[in-house]
Amino acid sequence: MHLSLDQLNTADQSGFVALLEGVYEHSPWIAEAAWASRPFSTVTQLKYALAKVVRSADVERQKGLIRAHPELAGKAAVAGQLTAESTNEQSRAGLTHCTPEEFARLQQLNADYKARFGWPFILAVRGPRGAGLTRQQIIDTFARRLDNPADFELAECLRNIHRIAEIRLHDKFGTEPTEGNLVWDWAEALAAHSEPGYAEQGQLTVTYLTPAHQACAAQLQTWMRECGFDEVSRDAVGNVVGIYHGSDASAPRLLTGSHYDTVRNGGKYDGRLGIFVPMACVRALHAQGRRLRHGIEVIGFAEEEGQRFKATFLGSGALVGAFEPNWLDQVDADGVSMRDAMQAAGLTASLDDIARLQRDPARYLGFVEVHIEQGPWLDEIDQPLGVVTAINGSARYAGEVIGLASHAGTTPMGRRKDAAAAVAELLLYVEQRAAQDADSPRGPSVGTVGVLHVPSGSVNVVPGRCQFTLDLRAPDNNQRDALVADVRQQLAAICQRRSLRFTLEQTMQASAAPSDPAWQARWEAAVTHLGLPVFKLPSGAGHDAMKLHERMPQAMLFVRGGNAGISHNPLEAITNDDAQLCVDAFMHLLEQP
Amino acid sequence: MHLSLDQLNTADQSGFVALLEGVYEHSPWIAEAAWASRPFSTVTQLKYALAKVVRSADVERQKGLIRAHPELAGKAAVAGQLTAESTNEQSRAGLTHCTPEEFARLQQLNADYKARFGWPFILAVRGPRGAGLTRQQIIDTFARRLDNPADFELAECLRNIHRIAEIRLHDKFGTEPTEGNLVWDWAEALAAHSEPGYAEQGQLTVTYLTPAHQACAAQLQTWMRECGFDEVSRDAVGNVVGIYHGSDASAPRLLTGSHYDTVRNGGKYDGRLGIFVPMACVRALHAQGRRLRHGIEVIGFAEEEGQRFKATFLGSGALVGAFEPNWLDQVDADGVSMRDAMQAAGLTASLDDIARLQRDPARYLGFVEVHIEQGPWLDEIDQPLGVVTAINGSARYAGEVIGLASHAGTTPMGRRKDAAAAVAELLLYVEQRAAQDADSPRGPSVGTVGVLHVPSGSVNVVPGRCQFTLDLRAPDNNQRDALVADVRQQLAAICQRRSLRFTLEQTMQASAAPSDPAWQARWEAAVTHLGLPVFKLPSGAGHDAMKLHERMPQAMLFVRGGNAGISHNPLEAITNDDAQLCVDAFMHLLEQP
Repeated sequence: MHLSLDQLNTADQSGFVALLEGVYEHSPWIAEAAWASRPFSTVTQLKYALAKVVRSADVERQKGLIRAHPELAGKAAVAGQLTAESTNEQSRAGLTHCTPEEFARLQQLNADYKARFGWPFILAVRGPRGAGLTRQQIIDTFARRLDNPADFELAECLRNIHRIAEIRLHDKFGTEPTEGNLVWDWAEALAAHSEPGYAEQGQLTVTYLTPAHQACAAQLQTWMRECGFDEVSRDAVGNVVGIYHGSDASAPRLLTGSHYDTVRNGGKYDGRLGIFVPMACVRALHAQGRRLRHGIEVIGFAEEEGQRFKATFLGSGALVGAFEPNWLDQVDADGVSMRDAMQAAGLTASLDDIARLQRDPARYLGFVEVHIEQGPWLDEIDQPLGVVTAINGSARYAGEVIGLASHAGTTPMGRRKDAAAAVAELLLYVEQRAAQDADSPRGPSVGTVGVLHVPSGSVNVVPGRCQFTLDLRAPDNNQRDALVADVRQQLAAICQRRSLRFTLEQTMQASAAPSDPAWQARWEAAVTHLGLPVFKLPSGAGHDAMKLHERMPQAMLFVRGGNAGISHNPLEAITNDDAQLCVDAFMHLLEQP
Repeated sequence: MHLSLDQLNTADQSGFVALLEGVYEHSPWIAEAAWASRPFSTVTQLKYALAKVVRSADVERQKGLIRAHPELAGKAAVAGQLTAESTNEQSRAGLTHCTPEEFARLQQLNADYKARFGWPFILAVRGPRGAGLTRQQIIDTFARRLDNPADFELAECLRNIHRIAEIRLHDKFGTEPTEGNLVWDWAEALAAHSEPGYAEQGQLTVTYLTPAHQACAAQLQTWMRECGFDEVSRDAVGNVVGIYHGSDASAPRLLTGSHYDTVRNGGKYDGRLGIFVPMACVRALHAQGRRLRHGIEVIGFAEEEGQRFKATFLGSGALVGAFEPNWLDQVDADGVSMRDAMQAAGLTASLDDIARLQRDPARYLGFVEVHIEQGPWLDEIDQPLGVVTAINGSARYAGEVIGLASHAGTTPMGRRKDAAAAVAELLLYVEQRAAQDADSPRGPSVGTVGVLHVPSGSVNVVPGRCQFTLDLRAPDNNQRDALVADVRQQLAAICQRRSLRFTLEQTMQASAAPSDPAWQARWEAAVTHLGLPVFKLPSGAGHDAMKLHERMPQAMLFVRGGNAGISHNPLEAITNDDAQLCVDAFMHLLEQP
């Protein structure tokens, strides 16, 4: 007999605690405190309330929760040390069948970890899909997390405990995130296509119009047809387009989607999730034989990352007339032109054909995009979904400070013209100036000196030159411009004070793209409907929605990324449960007037 | 009838001013004020007193002195605008015979310079040898100085005015720095030997045992024989050794000298001056038929700079048994081993022969070395000579800070693990911590981050790694060690605060070499005897004396370098007058008991 929300909502405190026994290991205080938050309209709301109790507890209590868990036991699991749940989970992960080498390694890791942090290593061994991690994945994660700072690792343990609880709640409620699993499995299957040189090492790299990229396009079309899309095609720049008609052929369509290309050695969800989630919705509608009034047009954009050619946002750009004709003559690292790459992939490379991809805004309700956050906010506050308020505007610069190279031994401190010292000052200024915008009503700014280099630097020479870059972003153009102005002024002031010269050249500027209020409100309503508080945040990264923004209203939904939101990295991760929430939110958005 | 010091010392103020008329252009206030410093025992003392008046004047008065000078006039010199002295000097420099292009260029430079600084460009056109600069040298210097910071250029103008005054005083006193000219001319003649690839561009490069290097050794031996040295030879590592016997064959000798190799595209005085100055003294003694009681052994060290092979201080090292046998197997950039290079140069490359070069300290009074400062101190305070208190001890490190590379757009400021920001903090700490030792009784420390590099840095990625070096020096080991300890502690604190890791590896450590008190006192007495105040300073750079320090007492004398003391650079410069002071000081040192 499975648990129901009704039972929980009507139970007294001790009954509530008893019903949730085993969800959090030996720690009834969590359910005790969460009881006050009844009634729960969704399990999502319950999970959030439980996590919030833990997040609000003091550190000693949090450590107590962690210490209530057994070590990753390997073969030596001592009977009685593990709860039934833990035994089941560790067994599913194959940890009861370690080789002697694996066992020894785990024992060593346990010892090192305990010595470093003073608590046992916690990992949700059933993993992000709930199907169990491999022993190798477990050992690799263990080794990697040993290097974490202590406060971060404490939070990571708690996040794993919440994930364990989430899976145990499925067992109690007898539920499965069916569409979340589907989305997760699609992402896994699409990641099987990767380019030579990367694929062999298990790395994911899919750049514009390579064979791996074409295989992805073909796969997406196959899946879209299986989902029940009415029209599926590949357009003149390689975008995969699936249309599910509405009941009213004249009604403007909702446009959605994201990109299926990747950075080199990237993650499986960046872009792709935004194609899969609406595909899952269309599949569900089609399975129910339902039509909305308006059509849904889902696009898998062929190019967003600017990896093979310097033509970032090529896919979404083509829809707003931003395809630049001279791009066709660009060549990749092997000297292959984009024109030749297109023709080899069966595209016409005709500028007329590409021009015809432009969408008429009058025929669309707007553009929405689901995307992995690629940042730490949502993961940090145990919040699966976030509503994007704006895509940050940005400005990039390449600069150099010119001083005087001189003898490190004989040039007194007060007589130096040290170019690197000036850039060091600038870097720290950028850091604190961007941080000043933390509480800006529009959202925080970010500023980065990513390139820092003393050309021909030598241990015993005071740096005469220092090269650097600036990347400055803010959720609206005014805030960005104020940041840029302050940083430029500071650079000038530093160089004047130190009697140095500098050069500074802008290499990129992009306008901020604030979310359309109506579409943002629909995302907020969807999140609320799921039982979650609305957490709003700007997007620090650029997205396809930024291009569509030039022609139609747009708004984005973010889903939390595991591992503190790391992205452009194989550690990029989402869970099947969060994927389910994306599908649920998208479905709610579709059904709103 | 030439001027005499006696006349000056006995004149009343107006007479004094009248006698010095024309030394400082249209500025009698300088002589007026210097009058109070009578009597002057040497012209050097007079020159120092005049310069001190200018240095102590307020900036407006200093600018007035500069504005009292005419522009570099070229053909268009307006009659009446120039003093007789200026006309004579500009004429000697050939400025009255410019080509139309040179004239136009000078007019443009005059206009640009006036616009930038608001005063006329001042250059001692008779140059560091007093024989006149070429028009091309004048134009190049003019163009270069246009880029100077204003306060530095003001000081540079005043220094040129003092040099003009120095030359005008020679005219008034009817004197010539004969031995200074000899030393200066030797340096010029020796610089005619330079390596292919550099010689063609007028650059000076003489690295160990190249043909240019061997030509220098041969030239030095020829000159030494001409000077009257009793024994002249080249030893087993290529050092040129000249011995001038004393009257007492059993008396310990005074050892002196410096190196004749250079860095690539180096200066003409670094090292070589320390060979020429005692050569000039021996030449004078021999010309007078004089013998001191003790012998003088002058060594031109074959290798100090570690350019062709990584065997720095090879020449002086051989004298203290520090020649490392495995050096013979080192190869240069062309794959030539040191052994082969030695044999090609007619040396045996026998370790036994090299071992025999070690000197028995009991047979020596000590080691003294004259060297160009290679720093700005002496030039800045109009002080020709400085007495070295110690050769700084040093420590070098190569380090790396390891953070987490992450998305520059999506990683909030407070969640970054920016490796470059940590190194920026460290750099600024090193800068201010070293500056704290400015008033240390032992002398100031210096600290440098010369290498600063974010590997694979990208404009839109928060730096995950940052490599750097540290070069920390102080005039005694305790002061150096305290500096090192503070910097290390700060690095650890920064990384802990920012949750980063770091590595730090020592790549070099050298003990400080404090000057021997008795020999340092003899240098001080020599400087005082010349009428100059004693200015003491540590040596920031390493010198051959540092190696001899391991076996015998040592002390060094520094002479100011022009162009703010720049070294390892073609702009390295000394004047014939300063060279004369070196010879005079060395001669005084020789004659002291």
